[in-house]
Amino acid sequence: MLIHPDRLFPAASSTRKIARKLYDSVRSLPIVSPHGHTQAAWFAKNEPFPDPAKLFVQPDHYIYRMLFSQGGSLHDLEIGQAELKDARKVWRIFASHYYLFRGTPTRLCLDFAFQELFGMEQRLSETTADLYFDAISEKLRTPEFLPRALYERFNLEVLATTDSPLDSLADHKAIRDSNWKGRILPTFRPDPVVDPEFAGFAENVANLGEQTGDDTATWTGYLKALRTTRARFRELGCTATDHGHPTAQTANFSAGECEELFRLVLAGDADADVEESFRAQMLTEMARMSLDDGLVMQIHPGSARNHNRSLYEKYGRDMGADIPTPTNYVDALRPLLDLFGNERGLTIILFTLDESTYSRELAPLAGHYPCLRLGPPWWFHDSPEGMMRFRERVTETAGFYNTVGFNDDTRAFLSIPARHDVARRVDCSFLAKLVAQHQLDEDEALEVAHDLAYGLVKKAYRL
Amino acid sequence: MLIHPDRLFPAASSTRKIARKLYDSVRSLPIVSPHGHTQAAWFAKNEPFPDPAKLFVQPDHYIYRMLFSQGGSLHDLEIGQAELKDARKVWRIFASHYYLFRGTPTRLCLDFAFQELFGMEQRLSETTADLYFDAISEKLRTPEFLPRALYERFNLEVLATTDSPLDSLADHKAIRDSNWKGRILPTFRPDPVVDPEFAGFAENVANLGEQTGDDTATWTGYLKALRTTRARFRELGCTATDHGHPTAQTANFSAGECEELFRLVLAGDADADVEESFRAQMLTEMARMSLDDGLVMQIHPGSARNHNRSLYEKYGRDMGADIPTPTNYVDALRPLLDLFGNERGLTIILFTLDESTYSRELAPLAGHYPCLRLGPPWWFHDSPEGMMRFRERVTETAGFYNTVGFNDDTRAFLSIPARHDVARRVDCSFLAKLVAQHQLDEDEALEVAHDLAYGLVKKAYRL
Amino acid sequence: MLIHPDRLFPAASSTRKIARKLYDSVRSLPIVSPHGHTQAAWFAKNEPFPDPAKLFVQPDHYIYRMLFSQGGSLHDLEIGQAELKDARKVWRIFASHYYLFRGTPTRLCLDFAFQELFGMEQRLSETTADLYFDAISEKLRTPEFLPRALYERFNLEVLATTDSPLDSLADHKAIRDSNWKGRILPTFRPDPVVDPEFAGFAENVANLGEQTGDDTATWTGYLKALRTTRARFRELGCTATDHGHPTAQTANFSAGECEELFRLVLAGDADADVEESFRAQMLTEMARMSLDDGLVMQIHPGSARNHNRSLYEKYGRDMGADIPTPTNYVDALRPLLDLFGNERGLTIILFTLDESTYSRELAPLAGHYPCLRLGPPWWFHDSPEGMMRFRERVTETAGFYNTVGFNDDTRAFLSIPARHDVARRVDCSFLAKLVAQHQLDEDEALEVAHDLAYGLVKKAYRL
Repeated sequence: MLIHPDRLFPAASSTRKIARKLYDSVRSLPIVSPHGHTQAAWFAKNEPFPDPAKLFVQPDHYIYRMLFSQGGSLHDLEIGQAELKDARKVWRIFASHYYLFRGTPTRLCLDFAFQELFGMEQRLSETTADLYFDAISEKLRTPEFLPRALYERFNLEVLATTDSPLDSLADHKAIRDSNWKGRILPTFRPDPVVDPEFAGFAENVANLGEQTGDDTATWTGYLKALRTTRARFRELGCTATDHGHPTAQTANFSAGECEELFRLVLAGDADADVEESFRAQMLTEMARMSLDDGLVMQIHPGSARNHNRSLYEKYGRDMGADIPTPTNYVDALRPLLDLFGNERGLTIILFTLDESTYSRELAPLAGHYPCLRLGPPWWFHDSPEGMMRFRERVTETAGFYNTVGFNDDTRAFLSIPARHDVARRVDCSFLAKLVAQHQLDEDEALEVAHDLAYGLVKKAYRL
Repeated sequence: MLIHPDRLFPAASSTRKIARKLYDSVRSLPIVSPHGHTQAAWFAKNEPFPDPAKLFVQPDHYIYRMLFSQGGSLHDLEIGQAELKDARKVWRIFASHYYLFRGTPTRLCLDFAFQELFGMEQRLSETTADLYFDAISEKLRTPEFLPRALYERFNLEVLATTDSPLDSLADHKAIRDSNWKGRILPTFRPDPVVDPEFAGFAENVANLGEQTGDDTATWTGYLKALRTTRARFRELGCTATDHGHPTAQTANFSAGECEELFRLVLAGDADADVEESFRAQMLTEMARMSLDDGLVMQIHPGSARNHNRSLYEKYGRDMGADIPTPTNYVDALRPLLDLFGNERGLTIILFTLDESTYSRELAPLAGHYPCLRLGPPWWFHDSPEGMMRFRERVTETAGFYNTVGFNDDTRAFLSIPARHDVARRVDCSFLAKLVAQHQLDEDEALEVAHDLAYGLVKKAYRL
Repeated sequence: MLIHPDRLFPAASSTRKIARKLYDSVRSLPIVSPHGHTQAAWFAKNEPFPDPAKLFVQPDHYIYRMLFSQGGSLHDLEIGQAELKDARKVWRIFASHYYLFRGTPTRLCLDFAFQELFGMEQRLSETTADLYFDAISEKLRTPEFLPRALYERFNLEVLATTDSPLDSLADHKAIRDSNWKGRILPTFRPDPVVDPEFAGFAENVANLGEQTGDDTATWTGYLKALRTTRARFRELGCTATDHGHPTAQTANFSAGECEELFRLVLAGDADADVEESFRAQMLTEMARMSLDDGLVMQIHPGSARNHNRSLYEKYGRDMGADIPTPTNYVDALRPLLDLFGNERGLTIILFTLDESTYSRELAPLAGHYPCLRLGPPWWFHDSPEGMMRFRERVTETAGFYNTVGFNDDTRAFLSIPARHDVARRVDCSFLAKLVAQHQLDEDEALEVAHDLAYGLVKKAYRL
């Protein structure tokens, strides 16, 4: 067997027994996935996934960043190619380096999918590469492995995508019009039109205006266009926005200052400070709009995007070269919190890549401000040790009820059940420790386990 | 039962057995409480505590910050009211939200008090709210629950309060004059007269001068007044000072520069940099005075006070809205350490809200400089996981003997035994792990357990 | 017994059993020590170590910093004296304060040496001080305790020293010429000639020029002299360089800017910024040379050296008063990585004293860039808890294969087997947890344990 029924549970037998019991009570709950990067087109078109390499290797920067770090070639892995020339060769490279993933969550999630979905029993390696490739390829051609069938098999209740304001959402419309019962929702991610450093920013803002019929050359027209677009997203079921800024900086400039900032960034005359000020102001503007239209706000700050310059120049964004940076929340959020911190009608979910902020800033902030909640461990920290550190450092100050359940945040559709399974196991292990150490009674732990797996995410994301 | 005899001990049976043995050897030691925020008036007047809401909810910002974070209203909780209009209603609100505290130290300490002091056996909830309210109210009217009786029942040996230099210490005098055997000591906390950002700073300095008869409009008169006031505190048993600056910055300016800084802050002409410089210089001045008069110095830096502006404007200080900030020690303490770092006659106890400094700065500093000791985990980190992290990150570099035992640091008098009990259990669990892993022999662990619970605090605070 | 066969293994019996099995498979592997501070002269001359105080106390700043922190006198310990006047007295001071080291790695390693090398069975204390002193002194006079005999007894395969470019390496030559089979290799540590803040910098640069016959008054001559000296080191087996800068800052200035920086630092006209820029540029120059000559680059940044000013003025460098500082990698390394980050022929091993960077910056960087590897926990973090934190925070993102095995990094030759033993035990405990929690199979764990103890260090350091 690749995966063991007791995986991730604490080794001490008394605690493991409790963890198992808690997990058994939540393992079959529906999966609510309020934040991720799957493609609506898969469910709109419902066509077969092409092959194992295209399915597992190509969309997963966790995989090819590790291969690259050990001297692997992105060219040989055909990264960035729309069609793979030699999918089997790519798969073989991956298989023969599978040992590199020992001790990583990538390994855990892949083994889960290999066994649970494809019935594999031997470990992936150079030797078993072809066996895997053929077995998976065969299954992918069957109706049970079409995207919609998998959505149902995975027991998904909601799956949110992440979308640009410039996206027509045609795939989301097609899904809705198809009367399929699956609930695929868009998320409003305005980075391309609010971050002056985003490629094509000025053009994006102009396109936004064309879409909505507003004059986005003016500050008020620009805000109106954003409001209109948010309404368009909400009509298709969107309940949340998402913001991937380099920092968590917010601002509260006067109308005149905002107009001047907007003029500068649109004209391309902004230096780094002005760009940062503009993004900061836009977080505040987004919060103001959320108060009106009820969209839940997600802030994902603190990633130095495209750190590897030559890779970025050759392959573009999202090539596994984004590196976390030290991130401040206590000062950065103040302008926004001064305005809206005590609003019960607003929900802002904070994420971090800087774990030193868990106990220092994030738990104290979320344990006080009514509008704040803490998102689950993100990206590099979306892992067993990372999840455990999150609970250990956050719970004593913010409790469980200022957190919002789990996000799989993945581009790899087939990893979704595995990711939620890991989260449920780790949360149950954490609760089992509290029960074993007599800090919580078992009936309470059962209730909390249910909330962490299902209740909190539905409430926080207003689903 | 609300609390289990084995609570907080590690689950693995071999380790738990050792933890239990170590804990049994220290559980009945007297409690020495060298730093906290109880009120001397309670012991001077020895009047009954009014009711459960006034006793448990009102003074405990850990409680109402959590309720507030989940949408609760400070108005409904009657926070800031001298007299409660409807104590039972406040108690019911708290009781029906008690589940929010699952996994928090607040829950642990409250359950301890509910069971050990008031004999409650059912968990607090909406259903049992009135049962609790009535049972606790009844007991509070009995002589056994008067402040002095509780002090004795708690096996307190020393209890230090925290006091402004402007305080007459009349309550402390009254206690001394009453010939009661309890040892309630003042602590000299000069923030109101050394921090230019403190409300009413200039007026406070003027009042200080009136009290001592010194001309506090001059730098030398001001220093003299501080020395005189420290002597007044010492006469009533004070052995320590306490400093709650935003940062740990120290300075060593020339006399002329000091005079100019003092002139600026007194005139209200100081910008943020000058204010910071003045506070920095004052830490150094306090250390200089400590070398003379033997008062132990406590530095509690790194809290962004009153982060929630509208709450501060409405309710004032200490409303559960203080948020930790990244804190530097390695550069900040240098000016002071250059002067006094190697003085064996000086004791400076450092605290932090930034856990990343434990292994990076604090343990290396305290493991080298003779004048430095490390205070126990503070505030948000005064919790089982927080205490364990402290020992895990500090011990290997600074050992046990550069730490100073436990501080309860509480406004909630009834939580004192519970807080010390948690600290003793966690320290014994940490030691049990060292014994179970054969890093320490049991006879040594017994000795260290005694030092952590009793010996080190008496030595460090010169009690 | 002072040390137990199961020391440092997890207490839960199922996990301990696995840890023991893994450890048994690696315990007898040869020791490869690619980075440390022993003296080549010991092996060149092969003379007896003088006495226990000179051997254990004098070279070990971990020991005397702890004694100093508790009020001990460096004068009484005869620190800084070439010849000890009263070695027995120094030893007695140390012995009577041995309890201060409870819970520290110093204690673990000393007990190992005391028992394994000198056959001691009673704990060191005031009572046993003389017993120890006599027993150890006697053994030190026997041929089995000569440096070369110990090297062989320790099962060392390689031992690297750390050497200034100005060092003649006469001892290394003498070892080579003696035809002894021991492999003692120099490491190129250019701080004295690349760090403008190093004592005697300009003179050092001039001396470098005299040594190589290059005109080190010019930028190009200076670079040439460095290249020549690296070649001289390589001839004696050197495979690595080492860089102890205050920060990890790198730079990529133009040739003209480099010349100007060099002129300023050489003339002593540089301010702190210019000095930092020069060091930053020199890291990049060293990387460029490494691409040519294949030397592996080690970067050890983030220590505030000689923090205790009066101690430094009296005793000089390396007096146990170096304190870690917050350290940035994500921005600091960018200029160098922009140039050479994707070079498969370059190996840069990163170390840190700021553990908050493990999961935030170091693991993500090493899990992406082909040229980067992570060095083991360093200095204050070279300890059981520190090693465990390293694996817990690094593995999930960077895996095992972007790390490089263990460095003992010690001046205390006799502690080398103990230090490697601790590392092997902690790594096996970490792996045992993964196996017990079914995240890794036992056959894989055995393979990884071998790599962590032996395989990775030989590969990374090109030995």
